[in-house]
Amino acid sequence: GKKNCNILICVLLPAICFIWQIAMIALFAIFVRYDPEADAHWTEYMHQNNITSNIENDFYYRYPSFQDVHVMIFMGFGLLFTFLKRYSFGGVGFNFLISAFGLQWALLMQGWFHSLDSTDWTIKIGMKSLINADFCVAGCLIAFGACLGKVSPIQLMVMTLCGVSLFAVEEYVILNLIHVDTGGSMVIHTFGGYYGLTISWILYRPNLHQSKRLRGSSYHSDVFAMIGTLFLWVHWPSFNSAIGNHGDGQHRAVINTYLSLAASVLTTFAVSSLSAKRGKLSMVHIQNATLAGGVAMGTAAEIMVSPYSALVVGVCSGIISTFGFVVLTVSDETIKIQDTCGIHNLHAMPGVLGGAVGAVTAAFASTSVYGQEGWASLLTSLMHLFLLLFFLGRARSLKQGYLFSLGCILRLPCWGDPEDENCFDDEVYWEVTATKVHILATRLCCWTPMLIINKLCRRSVLCQCEGKIRSQTRFTERMLLHMHIG
Amino acid sequence: GKKNCNILICVLLPAICFIWQIAMIALFAIFVRYDPEADAHWTEYMHQNNITSNIENDFYYRYPSFQDVHVMIFMGFGLLFTFLKRYSFGGVGFNFLISAFGLQWALLMQGWFHSLDSTDWTIKIGMKSLINADFCVAGCLIAFGACLGKVSPIQLMVMTLCGVSLFAVEEYVILNLIHVDTGGSMVIHTFGGYYGLTISWILYRPNLHQSKRLRGSSYHSDVFAMIGTLFLWVHWPSFNSAIGNHGDGQHRAVINTYLSLAASVLTTFAVSSLSAKRGKLSMVHIQNATLAGGVAMGTAAEIMVSPYSALVVGVCSGIISTFGFVVLTVSDETIKIQDTCGIHNLHAMPGVLGGAVGAVTAAFASTSVYGQEGWASLLTSLMHLFLLLFFLGRARSLKQGYLFSLGCILRLPCWGDPEDENCFDDEVYWEVTATKVHILATRLCCWTPMLIINKLCRRSVLCQCEGKIRSQTRFTERMLLHMHIG
Amino acid sequence: GKKNCNILICVLLPAICFIWQIAMIALFAIFVRYDPEADAHWTEYMHQNNITSNIENDFYYRYPSFQDVHVMIFMGFGLLFTFLKRYSFGGVGFNFLISAFGLQWALLMQGWFHSLDSTDWTIKIGMKSLINADFCVAGCLIAFGACLGKVSPIQLMVMTLCGVSLFAVEEYVILNLIHVDTGGSMVIHTFGGYYGLTISWILYRPNLHQSKRLRGSSYHSDVFAMIGTLFLWVHWPSFNSAIGNHGDGQHRAVINTYLSLAASVLTTFAVSSLSAKRGKLSMVHIQNATLAGGVAMGTAAEIMVSPYSALVVGVCSGIISTFGFVVLTVSDETIKIQDTCGIHNLHAMPGVLGGAVGAVTAAFASTSVYGQEGWASLLTSLMHLFLLLFFLGRARSLKQGYLFSLGCILRLPCWGDPEDENCFDDEVYWEVTATKVHILATRLCCWTPMLIINKLCRRSVLCQCEGKIRSQTRFTERMLLHMHIG
Repeated sequence: GKKNCNILICVLLPAICFIWQIAMIALFAIFVRYDPEADAHWTEYMHQNNITSNIENDFYYRYPSFQDVHVMIFMGFGLLFTFLKRYSFGGVGFNFLISAFGLQWALLMQGWFHSLDSTDWTIKIGMKSLINADFCVAGCLIAFGACLGKVSPIQLMVMTLCGVSLFAVEEYVILNLIHVDTGGSMVIHTFGGYYGLTISWILYRPNLHQSKRLRGSSYHSDVFAMIGTLFLWVHWPSFNSAIGNHGDGQHRAVINTYLSLAASVLTTFAVSSLSAKRGKLSMVHIQNATLAGGVAMGTAAEIMVSPYSALVVGVCSGIISTFGFVVLTVSDETIKIQDTCGIHNLHAMPGVLGGAVGAVTAAFASTSVYGQEGWASLLTSLMHLFLLLFFLGRARSLKQGYLFSLGCILRLPCWGDPEDENCFDDEVYWEVTATKVHILATRLCCWTPMLIINKLCRRSVLCQCEGKIRSQTRFTERMLLHMHIG
Repeated sequence: GKKNCNILICVLLPAICFIWQIAMIALFAIFVRYDPEADAHWTEYMHQNNITSNIENDFYYRYPSFQDVHVMIFMGFGLLFTFLKRYSFGGVGFNFLISAFGLQWALLMQGWFHSLDSTDWTIKIGMKSLINADFCVAGCLIAFGACLGKVSPIQLMVMTLCGVSLFAVEEYVILNLIHVDTGGSMVIHTFGGYYGLTISWILYRPNLHQSKRLRGSSYHSDVFAMIGTLFLWVHWPSFNSAIGNHGDGQHRAVINTYLSLAASVLTTFAVSSLSAKRGKLSMVHIQNATLAGGVAMGTAAEIMVSPYSALVVGVCSGIISTFGFVVLTVSDETIKIQDTCGIHNLHAMPGVLGGAVGAVTAAFASTSVYGQEGWASLLTSLMHLFLLLFFLGRARSLKQGYLFSLGCILRLPCWGDPEDENCFDDEVYWEVTATKVHILATRLCCWTPMLIINKLCRRSVLCQCEGKIRSQTRFTERMLLHMHIG
Repeated sequence: GKKNCNILICVLLPAICFIWQIAMIALFAIFVRYDPEADAHWTEYMHQNNITSNIENDFYYRYPSFQDVHVMIFMGFGLLFTFLKRYSFGGVGFNFLISAFGLQWALLMQGWFHSLDSTDWTIKIGMKSLINADFCVAGCLIAFGACLGKVSPIQLMVMTLCGVSLFAVEEYVILNLIHVDTGGSMVIHTFGGYYGLTISWILYRPNLHQSKRLRGSSYHSDVFAMIGTLFLWVHWPSFNSAIGNHGDGQHRAVINTYLSLAASVLTTFAVSSLSAKRGKLSMVHIQNATLAGGVAMGTAAEIMVSPYSALVVGVCSGIISTFGFVVLTVSDETIKIQDTCGIHNLHAMPGVLGGAVGAVTAAFASTSVYGQEGWASLLTSLMHLFLLLFFLGRARSLKQGYLFSLGCILRLPCWGDPEDENCFDDEVYWEVTATKVHILATRLCCWTPMLIINKLCRRSVLCQCEGKIRSQTRFTERMLLHMHIG
């Protein structure tokens, strides 16, 4: 029962945090060293490589973009997840917990797969590693979006551990064969989206309607979520350019993403207004689908797609994503997937679009556009579409095995996940004293006049209406509770 | 009526969004190309121009400032406009819509006027174009501030289209003749301010007092607006330095703006405390007038004004702006301009001050301060004050014609603007489900005891007080509605 | 009484603001000039120093970090201080006021102590000066955290004036002798922490429990504070690297701080869950102790501590800080220090830990790790621990004298500090109109049915229960007031 699950969390959450953190320290002590550009030998390295100035350190190329990505992960995603009226603490708090854990594990996993130094078997971390770790965490946060409010922090940490591991493998396969996915349309968004949907499908709750009263937003929680959206929207050009090539590569990625995002805002407003009765705009659409332009531009961000194509990508992704929210969100019960934040519409579908855009643009690009020095890297991108299809086909069986075991782990009864009627409620995992007083006061304020009337009734000739009063009192109380939660 | 206007919005808003976005795509396909620094030919360009390192790409000089400006436009202005208790969605949402639209149109208009390549009739966009487009949008957002809550999204888009066009012309005239307005005191703030006030004068509503109940702030909406203020305040040094000259120019613009902003905070607190009964501070002043130092430093940001002069500019602008809020805000009815956000006090007046500061400092600057290489560009600035006065005189007649036609367009009955009693209310354009439940519950909670008492009355000897109960019930209900909106 | 103190504020606050601002202008006119890198002579300076490119200007090395620090000071601290349910305006607003004042005074004080040009007795300000001024203000904001809600804005300005002066002296002693405190563990955090605790001890209020009703948070004020926490957390790597050495120094400081912060998040969640009944997490812990990793990494940020050591530092600081909140917060009455924000746990203790880490790592560092060019600067750091102890011992007596006089000043009866029952209440210093209406409406909504019942009673045979109704009415009203404040 509920009491039981709290005892489990009380013991398990600290235990897991400590054990994993100690394991991280041990593994970091064995494997992780500073990159030459972050090492005290940098001045010697400069002399050896004929670097004339400190400003040539990769730090100065990438640090502003890294900070923007960091803001997106912790503030953008975190605040976007505060949109539920009584799950704001969980949204922003658990986002904080799993990001801080995930990025340590991502540094290790990505190091082992991508940059293990074969001479001394160590991982050299620098600015690019930190950005990639943040990217990896983004994939897991997308998955968190599908499960928001329905899982315990322990399940989230297990999810993140598995997600980061799976991500590193997938990234290894895609990037080492294809070389083109600067902003991670496929690697991050499609992966994160489908990973989250799978988890959500594994943890399907037939009786989730019991917590329907808490599944909406309140006026101010919508504004908080909108701040998150704006953080993501404004900094997305940095997300798509952070690990781009120095010089024109990063510059172009920013321009393309900027234009694509702007276009998706207009189409989101258009489709949102079209889809509603009386043309009213929906905050859910504006908070999510406006970001689809950034997702869809991810793979092709650095490619010479020309500015108008970036606008076309933005228009298409905005339409697809908003339609997704209008059409697919209602079909929870049919497909047995409960997608709290609609990540399928925001990340999975625009991510697939982004992969397709990357494949098409790579195919159409010619040497005359790219200049003589750029054509070699393009040849490899031509394999893009074929490999994507091949990979999706072949990986499915691998994934299924992985996900089956993941499912068995996640459905263990000991993780302390909330009961169906307590989903989307911060009181399960957080101390929310204010609310208790609130509800108590509400109840009192509602009861007091009733008590007086009851007393009046009892002592008068009007006793016959007592029954009616009682039932109406109960109704009023229920309404008041409902109201004060909203 | 109201139903009618919603049908119009339901059809017109999507139609306009789609048509304009498609027009943008067509025009971008014809005119817009990447700048050499964002183009795949960058490596060849480097060889031709003896550039030795990728870090010399303009991207690395300007990207951090660009991101800050981008944050100011979408988060700073957006959150500043959430201060009304029931217009937070509209403030941040419509800010998002018109910025995303405006920046596309600004890239085109500014390209045609300032950087049309005469060899192939195309516009080459790079980091500086994106910053300038954001600046141009800022002018339109200032104008939005004057009309906040009183116009429909369609009117806002028309306003933005005209505003961006007018801005590009004005900027062409001012900058190509004068060469000095780094942070855009005049070009952006004075223009945006007077443009917004004109629109507000065109759309004057004599019966706006009917929505007076919604024209205040709530405790938390004031905190949201304060976040917007802080975003603007913190990033203003980037705003004034973003398109400055490389090297000492940008460096000096940051120092001057930093000091001017700090000084205007102190004087704003001082004047706010002086102006109120019992010395209480007003959130409206702190949210707005503290920014005046940045506005007033705009034109002269890059000039060698010396640090103490920056403080003097901050002090003066803080005093002027706060006095504006204290004195002018009450006189809506006299001058027939309803300025929701007080943009006259924050942008128009400090902008004029900034222009004057630019003229005076340019006049006083001597070659000994600027070094031998800087004196040539200063000579042109000496024409500043004369041209400003000349331009203001001559342009008035041009503007009048333009604004008359703009007025005719904006007052068309088909734009679906809100009725007088629904101004400043999100429910006209947004789905705000929570509130409905809220009000319903309130009504029930208020009615229920009344109903019981009524029933008691009817069945007892106390029927004579029934009339009194009814009237008091109505009063209570009105109070409750009032309360729960606040 | 209350009326009196408001008159004082009404006159004193503007007077002090104006006088101090004019004094600042005068002192800036006499002493402050632009740094060569921000001066119009920069191009000549480049030729003289064989600098080949504008990108070598210190501006481009430090501006992104400076902006992040600026965001931390005004948005991070400001929003963190909004956590009280009815002191959000004061938290963010007074933070704004004293920061804007403090940074001007800090530029002067730090200039006189650290960078007074002996040839012309002027202070040359550039990017590094602005960052250092922000750091200095951070120390005073930490001190503000201990006094939040209990002091008047005038007291805060006096506190800031003294704090900045004291800080400049302390910084001079520590940095000019030891040379190692990049992120300011000791200089900023330990100083700010103990300075704030001392002020709080001087201003001890035995009857503070009278405003206990306002000393908690509300659901949304906790989310606002969480935004502040995230601003601080995300940008802390910039804080610790902003004045680091160009190249590998800044790069390494970012990596170390990033890892240390991530580790402290996990241990904070663990200890918070362990310490509470039923394993529920506390927002106070998450909002504060997660930042301890950044504080503790301050001194050693630039040192080659190796990545795993950074994790160890984060783990330890997270545990210490969270335990501090669990254990020490309850002991207000015993030690006569009322620490509103728990700065002892967040800044003072992790700052001491950071100093110890710096001393230990400096002692263990060998030339083989640092490369040949780095060993000289290390020798000086070996004196670290000894000097720290020496300094702590000797400075105590100096401090006591200073603090005695400070105490006498701060306890003057004319500063308009709030009465015990009005602490933590924005209505003392801010115009909060919304609340008044709110409470009025609440009172009416509560009274109306009572009035009706009273009338019913008076005219019926039920008069005997009138007394009971009256007492219950009063009870209900009290509850409602309580409820609507929360």
